[in-house]
Order: sequence, then structure tokens, then C-alpha cells
Amino acid sequence: MLMNTHEARLDALRKELKARGLDGFVIPISDEHMSEYVGGYAQRLEWLTGFGGSAGTAVVLTDPTLIPAAAMFVDGRYTLQVRDQVDGRLYAYEGVPQTTIAAWLGTHAPAGAKIGYDAWLHGSTWAQGVEKALAAKGGALVAVAGNPVDAVWQDRPAPSPAPALVHPDRFTGQSSEAKRAAVSEWLASRNLDAVVITALDSIAWLLNIRGTDVERTPVALSYVIARSNGTADLFIAPEKVTDELRRHLGNAVSIRPRDAFVAGLRDLAGKRVAVDPERAVSAIFTELRNAHTTVVEERDPTVLPKAVKNPVEQQGQRDAQARDGAAVSRFLHWLAVEAPKGEVTEMSAADRLQACRQDCGDLRDLSFDTISGAGPNGAIVHYRVSEETNRTLQPNSVYLVDSGGQYPDGTTDITRTVWVGPDAPGPEVKDRFTRVLKGHIAIAMAVFPKGTAGSQLDVLARFALWQAGLDYAHGTGHGVGSFLSVHEGPQRIAKSAGGQAGTDQALLPGMIVSNEPGYYKTGEYGIRIENLVLVEPRSIDGSDGEYFGFETLTHVPIERHLVDMALLTKAEIAWWNAYHARVLQIVGPQLEGPAKAWLEAQCASL
Amino acid sequence: MLMNTHEARLDALRKELKARGLDGFVIPISDEHMSEYVGGYAQRLEWLTGFGGSAGTAVVLTDPTLIPAAAMFVDGRYTLQVRDQVDGRLYAYEGVPQTTIAAWLGTHAPAGAKIGYDAWLHGSTWAQGVEKALAAKGGALVAVAGNPVDAVWQDRPAPSPAPALVHPDRFTGQSSEAKRAAVSEWLASRNLDAVVITALDSIAWLLNIRGTDVERTPVALSYVIARSNGTADLFIAPEKVTDELRRHLGNAVSIRPRDAFVAGLRDLAGKRVAVDPERAVSAIFTELRNAHTTVVEERDPTVLPKAVKNPVEQQGQRDAQARDGAAVSRFLHWLAVEAPKGEVTEMSAADRLQACRQDCGDLRDLSFDTISGAGPNGAIVHYRVSEETNRTLQPNSVYLVDSGGQYPDGTTDITRTVWVGPDAPGPEVKDRFTRVLKGHIAIAMAVFPKGTAGSQLDVLARFALWQAGLDYAHGTGHGVGSFLSVHEGPQRIAKSAGGQAGTDQALLPGMIVSNEPGYYKTGEYGIRIENLVLVEPRSIDGSDGEYFGFETLTHVPIERHLVDMALLTKAEIAWWNAYHARVLQIVGPQLEGPAKAWLEAQCASL
Repeated sequence: MLMNTHEARLDALRKELKARGLDGFVIPISDEHMSEYVGGYAQRLEWLTGFGGSAGTAVVLTDPTLIPAAAMFVDGRYTLQVRDQVDGRLYAYEGVPQTTIAAWLGTHAPAGAKIGYDAWLHGSTWAQGVEKALAAKGGALVAVAGNPVDAVWQDRPAPSPAPALVHPDRFTGQSSEAKRAAVSEWLASRNLDAVVITALDSIAWLLNIRGTDVERTPVALSYVIARSNGTADLFIAPEKVTDELRRHLGNAVSIRPRDAFVAGLRDLAGKRVAVDPERAVSAIFTELRNAHTTVVEERDPTVLPKAVKNPVEQQGQRDAQARDGAAVSRFLHWLAVEAPKGEVTEMSAADRLQACRQDCGDLRDLSFDTISGAGPNGAIVHYRVSEETNRTLQPNSVYLVDSGGQYPDGTTDITRTVWVGPDAPGPEVKDRFTRVLKGHIAIAMAVFPKGTAGSQLDVLARFALWQAGLDYAHGTGHGVGSFLSVHEGPQRIAKSAGGQAGTDQALLPGMIVSNEPGYYKTGEYGIRIENLVLVEPRSIDGSDGEYFGFETLTHVPIERHLVDMALLTKAEIAWWNAYHARVLQIVGPQLEGPAKAWLEAQCASL
Repeated sequence: MLMNTHEARLDALRKELKARGLDGFVIPISDEHMSEYVGGYAQRLEWLTGFGGSAGTAVVLTDPTLIPAAAMFVDGRYTLQVRDQVDGRLYAYEGVPQTTIAAWLGTHAPAGAKIGYDAWLHGSTWAQGVEKALAAKGGALVAVAGNPVDAVWQDRPAPSPAPALVHPDRFTGQSSEAKRAAVSEWLASRNLDAVVITALDSIAWLLNIRGTDVERTPVALSYVIARSNGTADLFIAPEKVTDELRRHLGNAVSIRPRDAFVAGLRDLAGKRVAVDPERAVSAIFTELRNAHTTVVEERDPTVLPKAVKNPVEQQGQRDAQARDGAAVSRFLHWLAVEAPKGEVTEMSAADRLQACRQDCGDLRDLSFDTISGAGPNGAIVHYRVSEETNRTLQPNSVYLVDSGGQYPDGTTDITRTVWVGPDAPGPEVKDRFTRVLKGHIAIAMAVFPKGTAGSQLDVLARFALWQAGLDYAHGTGHGVGSFLSVHEGPQRIAKSAGGQAGTDQALLPGMIVSNEPGYYKTGEYGIRIENLVLVEPRSIDGSDGEYFGFETLTHVPIERHLVDMALLTKAEIAWWNAYHARVLQIVGPQLEGPAKAWLEAQCASL
């Protein structure tokens, strides 16, 4: 019974660590694939500490008499949540990136400490940094054989046994065979024998398969080793393999048990093998080096072709967006009618929105947990509504809803911020909303030369806010997959330095990226306006080179009641009017009756 | 007599190389301080090849029968000039950054070649890259003892014997003693014994001295070794040392002959010594390592305090700009009267501008060679007028003039682009000019949070041009010294990647930076609008943190005849009107008669 408290779980872990001769252990939210979202079997941090956020790490020292004897590391998104969910008597709260685990262990681990880590859950750069900090005190970082949390977690769920699903070429636009041929060519051109692919979305993309093993991301737990001769091994639990999957993969792909992956790595002895240090865990490097493999650090060769959507994927995204836009528009119409009555809650709104998406057909999952934030909850950037925090949408307040769907033809992600009447909003919130809108429009209208990285564009989304001494503490845009991860690299629109760092990856035609500036007034309200956009070539008379721009993919009205017309330029008003004309054109035919009348009113020219 | 041709000089160098057993030699434009501008004694490349640009490198292979047997490396600014000045029969032309010296030598140097280089003229990163390329072919990069060019350059000028000058505290705002104390503290905080300072502007700033040894940059040839105990050695040619200098430097600074610098490095045996790998040549690292010194690579500790101007330096800059603004305004008035007559040339205009600056008092030098570009010459970004290229300013054409002055209280840098009448300009040039202006205004009006780097702002200057499929191939802004280098780091406003790379250096209050977007239509005209701006703190009601903005320092009318009003927003027009009201306020009282009337007309509201 004691094991039902987090204190008892921590005690049990400490006993296990002591039995193994370890002075401490590091518990991240991670899986063997360095996934952003992980399956229940890998939710070790939540089981141990109660922390339910999507990013965080605990460090537990074995000696409970040390002060501090354990710490919980979270980023700025979770400073409030960690206090609610994690017992401060058991764990000291630490903020990243201000502090790091390496620095904390350097200060707080006893001299000569052996700190354990699960090398299947961490990248090697991280491990090197911690190792260095411990070595400075005569200590060491030790890879454990078997995760000690698993040893004490009695009712730990097994990894999902759900079948891997074939994703048809009519959605992917390119056969797995053709994709694998490109990887072979890439290997050959670098004089490499094989590449180890561990990112679940990379595997799903390469083999044109999907799954249901991870919430919100339609991937199947597996590994791939692809070779320069065009063959590949897929390591996957046998219960997940259907006859259809076998037929789909054909003879060139050998299906091996997931447990045979380490053996598969050892088979690469003497070969030249590419591994992506950003995507492969430390244990893989260790196994390959022990097997006398020549490890060549290269970016996973599927990352760029996956990011650059082909014409079929582009059209799929447009089709999914047309349906999704109708679903969200129906929801916003419902909200406009119901919310002023004062009985809609964050949870009932999120449920209604999900129902609207289900009604529009083909919804396989949400693309992430809906962020449904009324008033002050809207100011919590990564808010996830729960029974405890559920708020009613108050009359005359701001409501922010960030949501998306997983459809077989595309993954969507949209944020709208609405004013709940009946009265008109005040000048401050209109000023803030309009500055966010100006940033959104600046990105939407941007034209840029070939070679431009998203980090170069980021300031366009912030300029109007900065003029008023305001900013938002998140990136402006992330890549989005095709019925895959809602956060997909390598491109981003973000400041080039710091915790929400962008990359130097140039924006290429076919890439999808979100456009989502915001503004958050702590304790009062949050504003965010998000559409997905597609990079497209632009032909411009008299141009001095190749230029690109954005096609906006998301078609849902933006809250006109929050617009301060005096702040908009003529060009911005023209953008708004053209955007809403297009919304009406695409979504209008899908709506009827009062919903359609509402849409027409929202889409009238400013 | 033969030595008067570049062919003969090349022959002589090859004989010298052969005598030394070298298979080739590398000739950069550089000095022992990695200066941007170098003294006549260091102009080895120009003597050898005739190339008069400010950046370039020749590689000469000893065997003249090889094809190619020598190459001249220049960047995009000099692709035309190199063809005019350097004999293509003697040197193959190579473009950087597309190719590198390392890659070229890897391809063209004979197997096993010993290629010489002067380790006092190159950084160590460069040397390592070339070494690697040569090693791959069994060759080696060899540091020479004495530059072989000097051995054959019979009438090579001696380094300038001009005295080093004391720069009074009333201009510097901080005593050298206080600056040296800060360096000592910096050393102590890092547990370092000494720092080797080799950048001439760093030495000038640290010791509050100036000189006339390098054109356009008021520095004195010297080295400094500063120690954690507050003492320093200044290595400088004895003929440059006056009694006033000795008194100024006091007892804590030992004056030693410049030739004793290597001995000074050797004296650091066993110490922990900071050296800046971006600013110190390869030979210094070699000497220190041979002396068993612990070399710690750190940015020169004077770089940041030099870039952040103190209140006295800021006021000095404003004072210098007020005089310089009057000088440039008088010139532009003269130009408005004279140019339409069709007899003003690029050279006569540059001369007149220099005379206007001299008349305004206190001019010590230009801050760089005036770029005086009529019509198509304006499209050459780093154009330097010569007798051969001198053009007359044609009626109904565009004229670009980029110039600056060195005054004891500040260094200026301004570009204006004017329309030479009498007719009105056509729509295209107005469109281009107005897009450049919009970029200039966007930077001038920008407000940004603490921590923002110049690279984040760069796109603001390009947005309006990009919308039309146009761009400019240079950075948007560079730092500027206080009676020092017109190009001073570490801050820049530039794209974060590529040849004109910006840095991650955050903009700090007190930093001066240029704001100079442009547009260049090859063969027709060039447009650039440049003011200097000062980063200043901004107090904003309701702001969520520390925000900064720019105070514009340069006060000279911008060409109103080239403005297309239809492209400007209300906010941009308001900026223009406020800017010109300020120009009139500052420059107006310094002008009289027709010049004043002209100024008033230029400064009238749009």
C-alpha cells in the first residue's frame, strides 16, 4: 500500500539504488527513441514523482539524509505545475536552462559518487557533460543494466501491443521502396554501409507505416537498420506484425524482434555506420563502438525529405485542413452562441471541439492534448485542463484554444483566441491582440530569398509587440508532420539562440511550419493566433534570384472583435480581407444554417 | 628595371622561394595585428600583384611551369577589380568563399609540397586548415623565418616612425589606469596571469593612445602584455615614444622596443596567459607554447568595454556628428547646385566633401576612402574611385556617396544617395529607394528586449526589398569605434550565417552600430541609406522587461525626391518628419544663406 504514495516509491527506488551500489540515479521523460511524447511504459517520471508535464527530469541521490537529496528539473512552462504535482519535501525544484543536471550533480553529489543513468534514455552529449562534472569530484556516471525504476514499478504497463499499420501510397505520395532507395544512395555517396534509424517518425515515414503506440503521434515502436545495398531490418515486437505489413514491406525488409536490436547493432561490426547524435541514445553509440563499428555522426537521412512535403502530402494537408477548418468553425460558432450564457467550461469546450472534429470524418486522434484556456489559464502557454483547474468561460473574458487533429492525409494545429461577450472588449486586450495579429500577418506575408532560415524571420512576428515593450517566451513556429508528429524538425521559426532555439535549416518549398505569435498576461489572459503555412516558390517580376513565400493552410476566422483597426496598415487590412474571403470559399460550402450565417459575418471585410 | 613589372617581382619571389627550399608561399593582405587596414610596409600583396583591394590573398607555387602556378583569391566585391589590376597570365582568379586556399592547395600543390607562410600574418585556425589539406598529399605548411616577399621587395617602406599620441581623458571618459585595472580584475577572476593584446585598436583604447601608422585608423603599431598585478608592457618602436607618452603611461606600464615582443612572450614561461584566437596571429601561439606557457583562448577583454561607449564617448560622438552633419549637408547643397550642370565628377565630389569636413574643424583623417559612385559605379559596393574609373555625375542619374571622418571626439560613417536632376526620377528607382528607406526606418524604429542580437534585427532592413524579390549582398550594420576603427566588433546587424555573418553578441546600451540597407542594380545604379545609431535603454509603460531602442546619431537630410509616398505607412512618414525636424534643429544653426534655405526645404514635412 505504501507504494501508492510518491514517498514510498522514492524509498523503494533508493533501496534498489543502494542494492546496486549506486549513489544516485537520473530519471528523464524519455524513451529509447528520444520521443517528444512517450508511451505509458516509459512514463517513469510521472510514476515516481507525480509530475505530469511533458518535459522534466528528476535526480535522486541514494542517501535520503543529504540536503537536497533529490531534485526535479523543469523549464519555464512548468514552474507552477511542478509545485502542484511534486512534493517539495521530497524534491528540490530546479529551473532549466538556468541550471543543469551536470552543474547540480557537480555541486550536490557526494565526492566520489557513482551516479547511474539509463543509457537507452539519454543522448551521448548529455552523458558526456554529466560525466565531466562528476569526474571533477572523483565520481562517475554509470550506465545501468536494466532501469532501477522498472525494478520497483510493480504495475508498470507493457509497451503497446497494437499492430503496426500500413500507410497507403495515396497519402504518402512516395513508396517506401523509393524512399529506401534514396537512403541507400545517400549511404553510398558517403561510403557508408548502414544507417541506424531510431526516431519513430523517421521509421514511420521511411517504411510508410503508422501505429498507435504513443499518444497523439501515430507511430509504432521499432528500430530500423538500413543498408547501402537497399535492404533494411525492422526491429519490432512480433505481436505488432500483420500479414498486411509483411506484404507491404516485401522481401527487402527483414522483420526481426524488437529485442534483437542490440544483436543487430553488433552485426554491424567492422562496418561504417551513420548514427544521428541528436536522435539516437547513448547506448547505441556504446554498443556500436564496442562492436568495433566505425560510427559516423550524420543527421538521420530521412529528416529533410520528411520535412519537405511532396505534392501528394501537400494536397493531403490541404484536404485535411479544409475538413478541420469546418470542424473548428462549427465549434467557434457554437462557442459564440453558448459561451456568453456562462456555462461553457474549458473541458466542455475541448470535448465539443473534439466532437466537431470527429463529425467531420477521418479523425484518428488529436495531434496533442487540447489547450483550452479561459482567462488566466490562457496565459499558461502549455496549459492542459484537468478536473482541478477546469474554469468556466466567464462573460467578457478571453478564451484561448490551441488544438489539432491527426487525419490520414495530414496533421493539423491551430490556435484561436476569442472574446466571450456580451460586452465589447477593452482597449488593452484589443491592443495586445492586434499586435499579435500584426506579427502573424508579417510572417504570412513574408517573401524571402532561397537560403533564408526560420530564425531570420522570427523578429517579424515580434516587432509590433516589442514596440510596446512586450514579448512571448516561445518560438514563433515549428514544423509539422504528415499524419505524424505535430512538432517535426528540422526547420523552425525562432530566435537563433537560447532555450527555444531555432536552427540554421533553410526554409525549403514543401516545408510546413506553424505561424503562432502570442502574448500572455500572467493571471489575466493569453492570446495566440496560429495557422499552418506551407513554403512555396514565388515568381516575382524583376526579382534578383529565387524567392519563397508562404501559402496559408489553415482556414478558420480570426476574432474580429479583438481587432484595433487603428493599429493596422492598409497592407495588413488587405491581408485580413483576402484571408477571410478564402476561409469563406473553403469552409462556407461545408456549413449550413446559423453556422454558415455566423461564418459569413466573421468573414466580411474589415 | 625588370623589378618594376609584376612579372619580374613574381620571378624574383620564386627564386627566393627556391633558394629557401619552398614549393610555394601564401601572401595575404595582413599585418602582425590582423588589422583590417594595414600600413604601407605590409602591403605585400599590392606590391607583388598590383591588386589594390582591401581583402585578398595570393598563392604562388615555386615551379612556374605548373598550371596554374599561382592564384589570386578575392571575394565578391573584387571580381571586377581583380581582372583590371592583376595579370591573368600570372595568376588564376579564384573566388572566396566558394573556394578556399586550403582546397586549392589540396588540388594544385605538388604531392609532398612544402608551402611556406608567414605565421605573423595568419590566424592559427587558417594555418590548421591548410596544414590538413597539405598533409593529405604528404605535404606540409612551413612557417618561414622572415617573409620572402620582404627579401625581394627592395624599396619596401619602413613601418611608420610617427609618434604615438596621448588621447586625453576628456575624449575617452575613462583613464587608462581604470581600464587596466578592469583588465587585471578580469585576469584575476579567471585565474590568469596575463593577456597578450595585439589588436591595434584594443591597445589604443586600453592605453588611451592614438597614432597615424595605419591609414584611416588612428592607431600606433605596438603590442601589449597586461598582467593580473596591474602592470603592463607596451612594445613599441623607440622613435615613436615621446616624453608626453611616458608621462601619460606612468610607472605601471613598461615601454619596451617592439622588437622585444617575442622576448616578452618567452618571459611568460610557466604562466597562464589569455590570447584571442580571432585577433592574435599563429606565431604568437607558437611562441607561447614553445615557452611552455598555458595558453587560454579568450576574447580580448577590451573588445566589449570598447564597444560599449561611456557617456563621454557618447557625447563626443554626438558632437562630432553635429559638425560632420553640417559638413555633409553643405556638400549636398553644393552638389544639388553643381551636379545638374554636368561637370561634377566622382573625384571632384569626393574632394569637395573632404574639404567640407576639413572646414568644419578637428578633422584628423577620413575614416575610410570615400566611396563616390555615379550611376553604375554606385552599384559596386566597395567602389574606390581612381583616375581610370572616374565618372562624371550625369544629369538624371543616381549618385551614391559613403564617407566618414575621424575626429578626436568620434568616428563618423554616413551614406546618402541623391538624385541628380533636373528631371524627376522614374518609378523604378523611386520604388527601390523607398524600399531601402523602409528598411532603414524599420531598424531606426525597432525596440527590442535585452539579450537581442543584431542578427535578429537584420530581416527588418530587408523585408520591404524581399517583398519585391530584391536583396543586398552585405550586412545591415557594423559597430563603429570612438576615434578608432570605422568597423569595430563585436556587434553587427547581419544575417546569422554566411560570409557576412553577424555574431550572437547581444546589443547593449552604449553600442554604436551603422544602419545601412541598400540595393544595387548592376550596371545601372546603387542605393544605400546609412546613419549611425546608438543603442539606448527605453522606458515603456506596461513593459514586461528591459527594452532597448536606437538613438539616431547622424543628422543629414535624406533624398526626398526619390521617395515614393504611396509605399510609406503613416508611422514611416512620422519617422521621416521627426528625423528631419531634428536634422534642422542640429544642423540648421550651423548653416547660412542658400545652404540653410536648401536645408530647410529638404527638412520640410513630407
